Amino acid sequence: MLSTRGAKFSALLALLSVLDTASAQHYRRLGACPKLGCVFPPDQTDFIPGQLFDIRLEVHAPESGREASNNGAPDEKFSFCIQRGTGTCEDVSKFFSVKEPALEKWSFSYFEDLFAQDAKQSTNVNVASKIYRAVSLPSPGKYTAVLTYNGKSQTVANWVVRDTSKQRKAKNVLFFIGDGMTQAMITAARLIGHKSINGRYQSLMQLDQMENLGLQMTHSIDSFITDSANSASALYTGKKTAVSALNVWADSSANSFDDPKFETIAELFRRHRQGGALGIVSTAVIADATPAALCAHTRNRDELATVIYEFLNGAEGLNSTFAWPTSCEQPDVIFGGGAELFYPNSKSYGGVDMYKAFKDKGYNLVQSKTQLASAPNDKKTLGIFSTSNLAKWVDRNIFPNNLKNQKSSPTGDGTDAVDQPGLKDMTLKAIDILQARADKNAGWFMMSEAASIDKMMHVLDYDRALGELLELDDTVRASIEHLEKIGELENTLIVVTADHGHGFDVFGGADTKYLSAATGDRAKRRAVGTYAASGLSEYQVAPGSSPDNTTIVVGPFGPNFPVQWTPRYTFAGGVGGNPDRVENYKIHTNGPRLPAVSSSDGYIVNPADNTDGFHVSGTLGPDEAQGVHSLTDVSVFSKGPGSDAFRGVFNSIDIFYKIADALGLGDTGKGQEHGNGNNGH
Amino acid sequence: MLSTRGAKFSALLALLSVLDTASAQHYRRLGACPKLGCVFPPDQTDFIPGQLFDIRLEVHAPESGREASNNGAPDEKFSFCIQRGTGTCEDVSKFFSVKEPALEKWSFSYFEDLFAQDAKQSTNVNVASKIYRAVSLPSPGKYTAVLTYNGKSQTVANWVVRDTSKQRKAKNVLFFIGDGMTQAMITAARLIGHKSINGRYQSLMQLDQMENLGLQMTHSIDSFITDSANSASALYTGKKTAVSALNVWADSSANSFDDPKFETIAELFRRHRQGGALGIVSTAVIADATPAALCAHTRNRDELATVIYEFLNGAEGLNSTFAWPTSCEQPDVIFGGGAELFYPNSKSYGGVDMYKAFKDKGYNLVQSKTQLASAPNDKKTLGIFSTSNLAKWVDRNIFPNNLKNQKSSPTGDGTDAVDQPGLKDMTLKAIDILQARADKNAGWFMMSEAASIDKMMHVLDYDRALGELLELDDTVRASIEHLEKIGELENTLIVVTADHGHGFDVFGGADTKYLSAATGDRAKRRAVGTYAASGLSEYQVAPGSSPDNTTIVVGPFGPNFPVQWTPRYTFAGGVGGNPDRVENYKIHTNGPRLPAVSSSDGYIVNPADNTDGFHVSGTLGPDEAQGVHSLTDVSVFSKGPGSDAFRGVFNSIDIFYKIADALGLGDTGKGQEHGNGNNGH
Repeated sequence: MLSTRGAKFSALLALLSVLDTASAQHYRRLGACPKLGCVFPPDQTDFIPGQLFDIRLEVHAPESGREASNNGAPDEKFSFCIQRGTGTCEDVSKFFSVKEPALEKWSFSYFEDLFAQDAKQSTNVNVASKIYRAVSLPSPGKYTAVLTYNGKSQTVANWVVRDTSKQRKAKNVLFFIGDGMTQAMITAARLIGHKSINGRYQSLMQLDQMENLGLQMTHSIDSFITDSANSASALYTGKKTAVSALNVWADSSANSFDDPKFETIAELFRRHRQGGALGIVSTAVIADATPAALCAHTRNRDELATVIYEFLNGAEGLNSTFAWPTSCEQPDVIFGGGAELFYPNSKSYGGVDMYKAFKDKGYNLVQSKTQLASAPNDKKTLGIFSTSNLAKWVDRNIFPNNLKNQKSSPTGDGTDAVDQPGLKDMTLKAIDILQARADKNAGWFMMSEAASIDKMMHVLDYDRALGELLELDDTVRASIEHLEKIGELENTLIVVTADHGHGFDVFGGADTKYLSAATGDRAKRRAVGTYAASGLSEYQVAPGSSPDNTTIVVGPFGPNFPVQWTPRYTFAGGVGGNPDRVENYKIHTNGPRLPAVSSSDGYIVNPADNTDGFHVSGTLGPDEAQGVHSLTDVSVFSKGPGSDAFRGVFNSIDIFYKIADALGLGDTGKGQEHGNGNNGH
Repeated sequence: MLSTRGAKFSALLALLSVLDTASAQHYRRLGACPKLGCVFPPDQTDFIPGQLFDIRLEVHAPESGREASNNGAPDEKFSFCIQRGTGTCEDVSKFFSVKEPALEKWSFSYFEDLFAQDAKQSTNVNVASKIYRAVSLPSPGKYTAVLTYNGKSQTVANWVVRDTSKQRKAKNVLFFIGDGMTQAMITAARLIGHKSINGRYQSLMQLDQMENLGLQMTHSIDSFITDSANSASALYTGKKTAVSALNVWADSSANSFDDPKFETIAELFRRHRQGGALGIVSTAVIADATPAALCAHTRNRDELATVIYEFLNGAEGLNSTFAWPTSCEQPDVIFGGGAELFYPNSKSYGGVDMYKAFKDKGYNLVQSKTQLASAPNDKKTLGIFSTSNLAKWVDRNIFPNNLKNQKSSPTGDGTDAVDQPGLKDMTLKAIDILQARADKNAGWFMMSEAASIDKMMHVLDYDRALGELLELDDTVRASIEHLEKIGELENTLIVVTADHGHGFDVFGGADTKYLSAATGDRAKRRAVGTYAASGLSEYQVAPGSSPDNTTIVVGPFGPNFPVQWTPRYTFAGGVGGNPDRVENYKIHTNGPRLPAVSSSDGYIVNPADNTDGFHVSGTLGPDEAQGVHSLTDVSVFSKGPGSDAFRGVFNSIDIFYKIADALGLGDTGKGQEHGNGNNGH
């Protein structure tokens, strides 16, 4: 898993320091290509046997700046060879038995750093490129790929095809993603959702009780902070890539669809498991990065309409730059939000009625919690329950009036979506449909995402984020119970993890009564109690009664949820990376928080937010409206066949290989290197 | 481990809401005693068989306030009985065959909340109390203890004696504590200390590679945020207690030494393992909470001189209120800082020369890294290397001039301690001494603390905190290698964990050149790059060269440490709970950071800190000078015999039981309940 493949060691600091150029971190020519010759798949890429991928080669010639080269004329005579193990390095066309694609040329520009951006001094780069589409390496082992350009310059990429089990351990995979969920958030959710008496929890999160515990590293290929697109791609494909990229390595061309693609676990499941069923569930817009990454391939996660189109049609009918031979083949279950991408309007694909397009291909459409509950289990089912992201657990259950006057009906008729399901409703129904639709013994794969942990963390609405996290935990618990009931628990690998974190933690308690009554920022801050003065959680105390560490009270939503959401003494928490904001540590009873608003000077405090609170200046650039993702490793909880492999500390990409192993996807059915003969354009 | 022992369930919210009193979280009458009758050990306390503990009973009568009772006269006729399993409840004196102690009486006062504090309206409480000293329960099982007072009022405490292995799995235990260390910090340390190429780390932390992974909950008995005193007590004794308490439950009396005590792993190791050796190593003042908690018993962690006295003498010679029959029996190794507690001065115990007192009892004294290296292995060794806490790894290795002009010599002569060892030097030497001094097959127990992860997090000096963390990781790695070399690796249980967290995380990168050059807070904040603009770690790049993701450079301190500490592009990180401060995201080259200074209006920005940075207002009360501890679960890494038990999610107290199991401390050698007949004061 770790190696020094392709890396040159040097203890000679002095030798290297002769390269005394200005370093450029914020803006780079092309993230995963520090040299002027670029190879995708980049160095350090792994595959399972037979996993499809494109090869993109680029040679860059910057016209100016610190890397100015060849008077801006890129070498068009570059060569590329691939070597298996200690064999000879064969030309790529011969190695894969594919036709040589046409040379492509383009140019792009970038700023070398913030000073250059302020001075509007961009650097133009001219590019010569080739792409080899949909090849694969069926045999486990080490491969060395060498791009030679500008005479003797070389870029070397070391690839490994991991020896992957051909025997399946798990019939089904239920993969939960708590978007943005960290252990600090789980700790805070435990604090408000479970009763502690004298330092001993009287009940635990379901996540606390899973069989195996791991931690995974979430960083991107070319930045240490990730977004949800490339982190989901890593989890589903075993490939690191760049921010905003869905199952492609980011090349330098302007086209968002011609970047080199790679195959996802959902596509591999479809190819390997005839009669298997596939489900995608999210509380977000269903074309949002985490669900989209199961099936979509684009440099730009914002291509939402195309994501929906691809769920239904794969690459069929898309522009030839999209060329990709495999697909998710119409998932059996698609449940989430984002109705604006379905009813005919400017945001739907080609402006057409995508609901009709799905129904024309045999989908049953459900648009409310009630319809969901009564839907037949034997049909492919599209469930779209609101425009935009679904309503939050706290709003659906504690402040249901906040679902009104949102014009969020999935029909697009401007009425309100007040009958929305939660993650648990969607996931349990999805299990039933997948179970009914999968051929006997073929099994199913489902991804279920608690998306708004992340979305509510972004807007610093910690109460709602923890509500979503508790709902995820409740969903995992209910899923285990349901699988046991239908006799599939011991056949199902269950994995719960996150795609990245936010730097949230609880640092004390707040006396919201005192905070609201005090005058002046510093006086209000006295309301925050730390250490002994943090006190005990009042969320597990009956409203209006004293805090008490001897009584367990069960609230209207059952155990595992707060008994009250509006205690006088709340938790005080937050993140290190913030926009300007006002804090009062109270739950936002009127709907999700909006901490900052746009102004001519960038984002400033929202004057309507927390009007009784104290002002806190931000730590992020003025163009950041909200909190941002963070670096921390995230936890991995697992249970069921194959879950032992999910113990310990590993990289996000390893999740894919562990799932592939559990599913026995190592059997390619093919004996030699494979190209589809349909390269380039 | 989890149960509903002693907890009353109620789904009747309405019934409970009749108790419509003002809740008081910030200030409470007595933390672990929500009723007017208090039992210590409190409800939910566990023991290993034969573990010594005191029983303190209190009956409270507040004179005023929301709990005013009996006109302020506490019931002196309370009774207390203990029941094993489903047996009868026997009076405590009979149950333990001890004399009935004398009744004690005192009073104390407290503020019910911040409003009461502002109005200077304190509540006086009168107390009647008894204490039963040094009893124990030799038989595993459930016990119910009932205090009856004020007629029919009862406080019930449920205790469990856990069935603990009598067979030892581990001969030695090496217990590392990274004070305040969270997984987010480990992630950040990995980022700066290890090279990543295209999203794949080319080397890993030692912590990443341990055999078993767990997570533990750190909260106090009566507050959800802990300090290092009660969290260390939990780790070493299996008992939750209150902030600032070392191996006692906090009673309401003013005396810091008469609180009910309980026995530590170090004391138990001494009692059970004849000829075993004991070591205490810390980079802090050696009487600081984490090392102190191995041997000391006091309500107030600030009683530093007494902690040192107790290391040497146990309770012998201390005031009778201290009564405690067991001790650490002069640890074989005591290495750390805090020389001001040793040379004769106002801070040493009784003003005497404690160096001499230790030497008089056979200790070899070492006071520098050089002396440490050449010290004989066969003598009890006291190593005190500076006044206050030891110098930080970053200062010792990167900015050694910062060790000058500190007047920190351990001799107290006002010269500088420039020849200080680090955690690795101390730990490896301690292993050799323990190994030499332990009787054959008796084994040893050592706690080694990286204390300044916490101390540097408190002052928001993230670079130094991560330096300390990397030194801890390097120490764990070197200890494993050393144990393997001397043939003890497979006999040694190694556990690495923390006592609590700080809410630190990395949220981006900072262009420190741009930040410094820009004018105005908001313009400077543009230097913070998030997501793709966070870039790659420059800490693994040779100084002066370009960021590069193809080359591994080994710096002067070897792999596992940054190649440079002062790159132009740094990580940008922070915590959510802060005092007012100025940020520039640069390392503090002149020594540890001081973010805030005292003023007539509480703590304000230190005008000398980060003068080229931008101002950020705080989120903590104006009386907080620095960052504070946070809630998050912390990681547990383990290896060796018995380490399988450290997998998954558990409570901090469980660490003690897992270590006791590995050491086979379940054999009490006694057949019935035990009291030492020396009750009262």
